[in-house]
Amino acid sequence: MQYRATTQTETRRVRVERDLLAENDALGTENRTFFAARNILALNLVSSPGSGKTTLLVKTIIALNGIRPLAVIEGDQQTDNDAERIRATGAQAIQINTGKGCHLDAAMVGHALEQLALPEKSLLFIENVGNLVCPAAFDLGDAAKVVVLSVTEGEDKPLKYPDMFRAAKLMLLNKCDLLPHLDFDVQLAVEYARRVNPDIEIIQLSAKTGAGMEDWLAWLARAQQSVAVA
Amino acid sequence: MQYRATTQTETRRVRVERDLLAENDALGTENRTFFAARNILALNLVSSPGSGKTTLLVKTIIALNGIRPLAVIEGDQQTDNDAERIRATGAQAIQINTGKGCHLDAAMVGHALEQLALPEKSLLFIENVGNLVCPAAFDLGDAAKVVVLSVTEGEDKPLKYPDMFRAAKLMLLNKCDLLPHLDFDVQLAVEYARRVNPDIEIIQLSAKTGAGMEDWLAWLARAQQSVAVA
Repeated sequence: MQYRATTQTETRRVRVERDLLAENDALGTENRTFFAARNILALNLVSSPGSGKTTLLVKTIIALNGIRPLAVIEGDQQTDNDAERIRATGAQAIQINTGKGCHLDAAMVGHALEQLALPEKSLLFIENVGNLVCPAAFDLGDAAKVVVLSVTEGEDKPLKYPDMFRAAKLMLLNKCDLLPHLDFDVQLAVEYARRVNPDIEIIQLSAKTGAGMEDWLAWLARAQQSVAVA
Repeated sequence: MQYRATTQTETRRVRVERDLLAENDALGTENRTFFAARNILALNLVSSPGSGKTTLLVKTIIALNGIRPLAVIEGDQQTDNDAERIRATGAQAIQINTGKGCHLDAAMVGHALEQLALPEKSLLFIENVGNLVCPAAFDLGDAAKVVVLSVTEGEDKPLKYPDMFRAAKLMLLNKCDLLPHLDFDVQLAVEYARRVNPDIEIIQLSAKTGAGMEDWLAWLARAQQSVAVA
């Protein structure tokens, strides 16, 4: 059943949410203008908790080996564990703690940008709060959302959380090293993702073993090229 | 950094959220009264997407083998896949699709209760939307939140999503069959969970292989006994 609440408070909630999203969109556009003026590629990494986003970023930063300026904005309810892990690679990282909040918004990212000294042609990764629902609606000014789906989560996640998979340009199917130990049907996951988003690009990888990382690095290089050309 | 927005819309959001939670609490109390009058044990299962809640429920229902009346309320943004999986066991199941929503609330559960014909001394499982943030704040009238943490998600989730682990009475550490293939430190996960919630009970299991299921079934039996006695 599709339950629809009809209380006055619910009506107020819908209104305030619409206004919040409109304000966020305006600030997202400001961030986008900031990035465009500096040829910065900003990517918004979204997923369930524990899909391996931070490990992926650490391995990506090591693989890129300083060939381009790079920074990370980390979002979590609590702890600055992830920013610490990024800083251990030598890269710049800012941790945002959302407290009760379930997503990053454009204002938080704009605020972080004031503190980061991002040179021209930087690569900026924004690691969102682990949540397949709420971050889907908030534009951060990024060039693309990249959704990370761990193969341990099951094939059906694109169907159950369609807004997120529809909003993403790329799906990274992570932890593929665990496939031999799981009942996970890669083709079915791909079919489900394409059912909600026919244009989604898909890369299979394992941040842990490094398998498939070259495809992801090639995607990043192409994405950065298209920013520079635009 | 802890970012605090201060716009007027944000102030309205805080107010409407406070009012929504107050309304929800009142309806949660109504549900709780309903359960108490019928000696029904209602449990609210919360977790990240893909932690294995539905598989756990299917295996639990099969193991209980009809010894007590049982029903399931399933929450998802989209699809009624999970309710279908539950119904295949012969148990009653109602699917709630939250659409854009990121959690179940007490009104949705109350509405579902009108459609379920729950006999006295039933066991009611409420499988919440896969989300470690938002469902923490919403009382459904349940006797307890049971948080399922898959060992594939990493040890640090209790620290990163403290509200949820603080709100839970029991943590089920699921997918333990995968431990030999992961760098997951069970003792560290237990330590982190107890750091945010010293009273949390913890059971390690694998819904897939059945390991640890007897501890979970014993916990359920004790919980149901305490409802009958109360």
